[in-house]
Amino acid sequence: MAHNLEHTLALLSRTPAALDAFLRGLPEVWTRSNEGENTWSPFEVVGHLIHGERTDWMPRARMILEVGETRPFEPFDRWGHVRECEGKSLEQLLDEFARSRLQNLNALRALNLQPEDMARRGRHPALGVVTLSQLLATWAAHDLTHLHQISRVCSYQYREAVGPWSAYLGVMHCDGHSAP
Amino acid sequence: MAHNLEHTLALLSRTPAALDAFLRGLPEVWTRSNEGENTWSPFEVVGHLIHGERTDWMPRARMILEVGETRPFEPFDRWGHVRECEGKSLEQLLDEFARSRLQNLNALRALNLQPEDMARRGRHPALGVVTLSQLLATWAAHDLTHLHQISRVCSYQYREAVGPWSAYLGVMHCDGHSAP
Repeated sequence: MAHNLEHTLALLSRTPAALDAFLRGLPEVWTRSNEGENTWSPFEVVGHLIHGERTDWMPRARMILEVGETRPFEPFDRWGHVRECEGKSLEQLLDEFARSRLQNLNALRALNLQPEDMARRGRHPALGVVTLSQLLATWAAHDLTHLHQISRVCSYQYREAVGPWSAYLGVMHCDGHSAP
Repeated sequence: MAHNLEHTLALLSRTPAALDAFLRGLPEVWTRSNEGENTWSPFEVVGHLIHGERTDWMPRARMILEVGETRPFEPFDRWGHVRECEGKSLEQLLDEFARSRLQNLNALRALNLQPEDMARRGRHPALGVVTLSQLLATWAAHDLTHLHQISRVCSYQYREAVGPWSAYLGVMHCDGHSAP
């Protein structure tokens, strides 16, 4: 399936409410536990999503429209969520993510992008030339990769509790497939 | 982390609203597409969750309490969702899942299980002896494995659209790890 801006917007607009319904009020053993050293808890994932809203998706879309391939994007700080999370509750982060996502989607709609804009090109600092269409599709897929991660991190907490049923639970055998 | 009934209930009670927030009104290219032959769309996953509410979790919990290890559970029909889905919209399935889950959690609370009940044993037709604690932990982990699956199935639809970013998106490299 090719990238379609309306499909991307429909998905992006639903993620904050889905995370809110799942995580708000959930005991901290689920939301604050991770998969071991250098891995993230669901709480930190929400901080990472906020950091992406601030520094990744819309700033890069604007760079594509304004300077094209002439200058690479700012590298994304994978540990930028540490500052986003500092001194905040999960409830505050969920509110902030919802607000920030809504603002960004309104800004994206206000750009009034036309089909021909989708092929406009920018430069990723590591991946090289990318298109606006690829950037927007990745924004949506990035939400999905973190829903995938949150479900995996939660399941990890019950890896022993499920006993022999582990064999039937695919999520228990997922290592995240992250790039190094 | 050991199994804890309150933690399990907290998770189980949130899944219907989380799926509702994510899937209701989402374009059908996301909700009705799968990963190829013999794989499930998010729509079918919701049907499968309903089928589990009817035939798997609470019936098996009751069997453990009533007959213990003397008789194996009824085998679960992995294609039972076909009937659940027939002639229904995704919206109807989401309503049905929420209603059915709520009824089951009320029934579970009404059992007034005590810590010592958690070690009570039943017989799984393939896995052998299992405990009530393992069954209830698996109910929660089963929700998580299907959230994991839904995020993966959706991401599959954009596997080409994301271009070179695929390298950074763990979910794009997940094969589900399902038992055969």
